[in-house]
Amino acid sequence: MISQKMLNMTKNNSAIRAMFEEGNRMAVKFGRENVYDFSLGNPNFPAPPQVNEAILDIVQNTDSLVVHGYMSNSGFDSTKKAVADSLNRRFGTSFGPNNILMTVGAAGGLNVVLKSILNPGDEVIAIRPYFVDYRNYVTNYDGTVVEVNAREGDFQIDGDEIERAVTPKTKAIIVNSPNNPTGVVYTEQSIQTLAAVLEKKQKEYGTSIYIVSDEPYRDLVYGQIEVPYLTKYYRNTLVCFSWSKSLSLPGERIGYAVIPSECDDYEALYAACVVATRVSGFINAPSLLQLAVERCVDVETDVSFYDGNRRLLYDSLTSFGYTCVRPDGAFYMWIKTPIEDDRQFCEYAKKYRILAVPGSAFASGGYMRIAYCVSTSMIEKSLPGFEALAKEFGLKEN
Amino acid sequence: MISQKMLNMTKNNSAIRAMFEEGNRMAVKFGRENVYDFSLGNPNFPAPPQVNEAILDIVQNTDSLVVHGYMSNSGFDSTKKAVADSLNRRFGTSFGPNNILMTVGAAGGLNVVLKSILNPGDEVIAIRPYFVDYRNYVTNYDGTVVEVNAREGDFQIDGDEIERAVTPKTKAIIVNSPNNPTGVVYTEQSIQTLAAVLEKKQKEYGTSIYIVSDEPYRDLVYGQIEVPYLTKYYRNTLVCFSWSKSLSLPGERIGYAVIPSECDDYEALYAACVVATRVSGFINAPSLLQLAVERCVDVETDVSFYDGNRRLLYDSLTSFGYTCVRPDGAFYMWIKTPIEDDRQFCEYAKKYRILAVPGSAFASGGYMRIAYCVSTSMIEKSLPGFEALAKEFGLKEN
Repeated sequence: MISQKMLNMTKNNSAIRAMFEEGNRMAVKFGRENVYDFSLGNPNFPAPPQVNEAILDIVQNTDSLVVHGYMSNSGFDSTKKAVADSLNRRFGTSFGPNNILMTVGAAGGLNVVLKSILNPGDEVIAIRPYFVDYRNYVTNYDGTVVEVNAREGDFQIDGDEIERAVTPKTKAIIVNSPNNPTGVVYTEQSIQTLAAVLEKKQKEYGTSIYIVSDEPYRDLVYGQIEVPYLTKYYRNTLVCFSWSKSLSLPGERIGYAVIPSECDDYEALYAACVVATRVSGFINAPSLLQLAVERCVDVETDVSFYDGNRRLLYDSLTSFGYTCVRPDGAFYMWIKTPIEDDRQFCEYAKKYRILAVPGSAFASGGYMRIAYCVSTSMIEKSLPGFEALAKEFGLKEN
Repeated sequence: MISQKMLNMTKNNSAIRAMFEEGNRMAVKFGRENVYDFSLGNPNFPAPPQVNEAILDIVQNTDSLVVHGYMSNSGFDSTKKAVADSLNRRFGTSFGPNNILMTVGAAGGLNVVLKSILNPGDEVIAIRPYFVDYRNYVTNYDGTVVEVNAREGDFQIDGDEIERAVTPKTKAIIVNSPNNPTGVVYTEQSIQTLAAVLEKKQKEYGTSIYIVSDEPYRDLVYGQIEVPYLTKYYRNTLVCFSWSKSLSLPGERIGYAVIPSECDDYEALYAACVVATRVSGFINAPSLLQLAVERCVDVETDVSFYDGNRRLLYDSLTSFGYTCVRPDGAFYMWIKTPIEDDRQFCEYAKKYRILAVPGSAFASGGYMRIAYCVSTSMIEKSLPGFEALAKEFGLKEN
């Protein structure tokens, strides 16, 4: 009786949900502290104090009708200006408030942007491995996902793969750097290659092809790594940002989209995104949190906690014989499974009470994802299991 | 280049937007205090103190990882339980947490519910006059709106109209009581008539027809008026509630949907709604606000401010000769325009610096909507203009 589209999406959902429930069952059986759950990208590092200080001050000292009231569907003018100014300071861009749309997280932003650009049958390129819900976001608006592979080995962008995938129906490519699930940050060269391919294809077909840059992990990078700001390399770039990870606010659903003035159809597109925000049912990004992040746009993300976890896990797992790219950003590690069947390997891992997400959930078999946004002590306690698992599959000898 | 569907929605949007901009132009020209803007349903009464007290306490005394973190897409268990318990206490229902889905306001809830039940071509009945975005919400999921008229005179449900409108393709009827824009509360008899028609038609066609009850104004009623709880009259009722108006939190986007266990396909439908919450980009209702409203589920809405405005406006406007139904709920008044062309009449009203929304914006010409969620002094200052306008159109003589 209900929506066929939603029935399909619900069916596809069951694998991850089953794992989540399995984790809960195991926690009951062995005790929560004895289950090493690396399956969820939920920050285990509290929001910086500035966020709660801002919330307390706003609630106590700002007119309640403003704090909790309606504003323009695109967000508070002051918040949009603070975001634009901060981006300009940090990345040398020249955005104004009218290039910013406050969104219900990056997932809200991606839906608003895709709803605004897609016609039924339009194609959206996704680079494998990719976050599984991209497929649903595109399907929401009757678009089609076209999958291409990241480059073998380093998981950078493969220009040839993308050139082969672009057709006259290509409306967008979703780019996610730092990447979930690989942890890879696309180099400037990767971005330049991508921009060149898209420019060429736009010209060839007389179309507009948007880069939709999903950037919840932008501020989570380690060492001296720089994450190129894509609007500076390619005119038709739309950015979707979220404070979920950089300020540890995933439950609050607060982010923004950037729609640069120089992109094709800017005026119609910005207007469409504002109306899409309303008619999709978001109406606007949550008001109190808009005012709070306005005061925190320049708060630096403390990545030392995640960096410690990253080093510990990377050094340990590689010493046990596991193969993975050293992650430069986000809080995920993408590990080659010693057997091709990643689902089966993740089943084996449960023997050691280790929960990881099979690569198949990211459209890439033969790998698994580990989220290291967990307590360091959990990682420490999990290591003997990882080592035993490696021995069981003869990894040390390889 | 961009989405044709969104281009159409953006075009339809321009009338209300133009009025909003006209209001701002008039404010610049005459001073904000000399413009009587009755066009927006934005509460002008602050949130009750319990809300901010709850926010302050939660932020200061609850673990930041919980307050701002992910929870199940359906919401915090404790919040869902508090909502279910409160509904059971107040309405004699028997809901559990698994009948509640926390949503990004009622607009978010309506989208999640419609996405979960509609297949392309399905019909959704809307009762004229109706909130204009219902049409967009249905179009989002490729459904078709079928319009029926409310009963002439009292704007109650007209059973015969609905019976004629139901077809084998009817999947839902949207009911909104207290009503925007009429202010009418549907009587128990209206609900019983509706339920009887739908039961009969479900049987006749072998289909499921859901009542989707949009209830942001449930707690805004005056005098001894009771608003029947629809799930008690009709099994296939889905309720979408928001705290936007009852707790004056429209910017925060916090509400819930009720999916009763006894409705057709309950399990598949609840699962679909949870997944729809995620894949639409909401992910979950904002976390801090979920925890705050959890503590405020039984806070009574103070309607005395709106009631004072209602009496003042109703008594004044009817004494000037205007015709309207005395509103029992919400904060809107639905006034017959003295000329058939409501848009033109609203243009005339601007001469007296009065801004009202033409009925055409609610699919019903010959009327206009006035939102009285404004300061009482603004109403007082606007009255001479309303009186002069009435005289100009010879209303006193009628």
